[in-house]
Amino acid sequence: MNRLTLALDVMGGDIGPRITIPASLLALENDPMLSLILFGDSQQISPFLENIPKPCLNRIQIHHCTRTIDNNQGISYALRRSKNTSMHLALEAVQHGVAQGCVSAGNTGALMGLSKILLQPLKGIARPALVSMIPTVDGEKSVMLDLGANLECSAENLYQFAIMGSIFAEHRLNLVYPRIGLLNIGVEEIKGHQFIRDAANLLEKSTALNYIGFVEGDLLLNGKADVIVSDGFSGNVALKTLEGAAKNVLSLFKGQSKHYCLKPVFWGMRYLFKTSYQRLKHINPDEYNGASLIGLSAVVVKSHGSANVNAFAHAIADAAFQARQKLPEKILAGLARY
Amino acid sequence: MNRLTLALDVMGGDIGPRITIPASLLALENDPMLSLILFGDSQQISPFLENIPKPCLNRIQIHHCTRTIDNNQGISYALRRSKNTSMHLALEAVQHGVAQGCVSAGNTGALMGLSKILLQPLKGIARPALVSMIPTVDGEKSVMLDLGANLECSAENLYQFAIMGSIFAEHRLNLVYPRIGLLNIGVEEIKGHQFIRDAANLLEKSTALNYIGFVEGDLLLNGKADVIVSDGFSGNVALKTLEGAAKNVLSLFKGQSKHYCLKPVFWGMRYLFKTSYQRLKHINPDEYNGASLIGLSAVVVKSHGSANVNAFAHAIADAAFQARQKLPEKILAGLARY
Repeated sequence: MNRLTLALDVMGGDIGPRITIPASLLALENDPMLSLILFGDSQQISPFLENIPKPCLNRIQIHHCTRTIDNNQGISYALRRSKNTSMHLALEAVQHGVAQGCVSAGNTGALMGLSKILLQPLKGIARPALVSMIPTVDGEKSVMLDLGANLECSAENLYQFAIMGSIFAEHRLNLVYPRIGLLNIGVEEIKGHQFIRDAANLLEKSTALNYIGFVEGDLLLNGKADVIVSDGFSGNVALKTLEGAAKNVLSLFKGQSKHYCLKPVFWGMRYLFKTSYQRLKHINPDEYNGASLIGLSAVVVKSHGSANVNAFAHAIADAAFQARQKLPEKILAGLARY
Repeated sequence: MNRLTLALDVMGGDIGPRITIPASLLALENDPMLSLILFGDSQQISPFLENIPKPCLNRIQIHHCTRTIDNNQGISYALRRSKNTSMHLALEAVQHGVAQGCVSAGNTGALMGLSKILLQPLKGIARPALVSMIPTVDGEKSVMLDLGANLECSAENLYQFAIMGSIFAEHRLNLVYPRIGLLNIGVEEIKGHQFIRDAANLLEKSTALNYIGFVEGDLLLNGKADVIVSDGFSGNVALKTLEGAAKNVLSLFKGQSKHYCLKPVFWGMRYLFKTSYQRLKHINPDEYNGASLIGLSAVVVKSHGSANVNAFAHAIADAAFQARQKLPEKILAGLARY
């Protein structure tokens, strides 16, 4: 692994330094070649950096700033007033080549808007998208996009998401000719919005892409497709619904463990279901975290706004992986193929 | 309970008489005041009616027809060619007052289209919707609509869905002033499609409706709202995603039971999680079934196209309950209040 510096917006989201700083330390511990620039209020950051071993501290740089972007701000308002906010400064560090990627748990719309302005979409990309990986019941993973960056989409947008998702799956999941499905409310070709059916026609014509047809919500976890493409609204609804279902099931497991007399049964059961349990955890945003903004000239990872320490550390590791893999460059090269 | 006759399209969906006829017999067994008219191919139906006790057989009437509507047909094509199909004839029986409600597992679009033509929407209703109940983690239920009848919706459509859903929840879940939420991809007022935000404005102005704000996909099972309102596309994606997650978790349980040596542990665990397991089963469309077409002058229940015997029987019982409760009349009366 080569040396790498990431810029972190440590103030964004509902979480703030009490989560983002311990997560940063965890990420540094797990990745000895990683350095971090933390953008945020040094008064809030410093208490979490006491008694940290020096080799770790040497790889941290604090860029003090007090302004932040609120989650409730409209995108246009947030962008105009984003100067000197932790998110803006973190993205600027990537723009100026000081860092090779950025992680933020802040306002998704503002992150996408600022990324488009500061980092620019890749040449030929009309709309960058939000992409994430979801686990499948057979222990594999699928890639899903768009997850909320583009509420209204055209057939051409979905077609480009399919291309980007396919390249992302090739490199991130190590696949050849990944199977692409379009999220729809039926598998028959007459089903769904017109723009989805038009996207299906475009995808069917492309021999370079491995399009397999429509995928319904009930098969998202079944690994029917390696890449699941949808507009941002439906994709976000589907992902959050999955996360909610996983969280609720896990809370059943956790709830039972409080009954001490039942603990042996609980642990026995948990052992039996270990694999399944691990997979469920992977849908759980507290444990498994980090959607990527794809289609930009640099790596930007959006963490859940309510991530825990492990989840934010996972988002940092994800950004490091993508930056080392040079995923934006691979997508740009791949675009030429289609 | 009063006497009631339902018209069943026993040919629709992927299932056919091998499921719908045993399900009909189960429904008749459970409801001694119920009679059924079965619309379908008598040659396919008769073998399933051998050795049936006479009191049960007396409450069955077969209306022979061989034509059916295919699942893959476009709505307009299906409607024009629907004459003498099992679905058309079953709805006609309701139109002519021979039956008080209809159940079909067939093509959802055709069922909605034919119902609108033959049974008419209630006065003042622009768009009938597809409504279903989903279980919550605390053992209660929520009502969700639209689930796929209306892909494109306006703010006014969502507002009417909220009214219908609220009246449905009042009578079906026995609630006073049910809490209404709009499915969205964030809880902040700037989130989501414009038509959803406009619907929120309409709902906020109504004091007769108990509007509580936006609900995200991850809280669908948490009983945050008694009525969850969305456009048909997103609603269908969310419901199917929930069903898929529930099915996958249940298959983990079922899969383990094949290991005979582990059976005692499995059963012990199943006992511990019985309540939770039952709730999960309720999201599973194989066990819990029946979406209703709401906003029509009569009761129409749409069964899953791949329902099992219990599920189709559940859809029949649901239609009987709604017809006895005179839900369409209650919705019509309730509409005047808003």
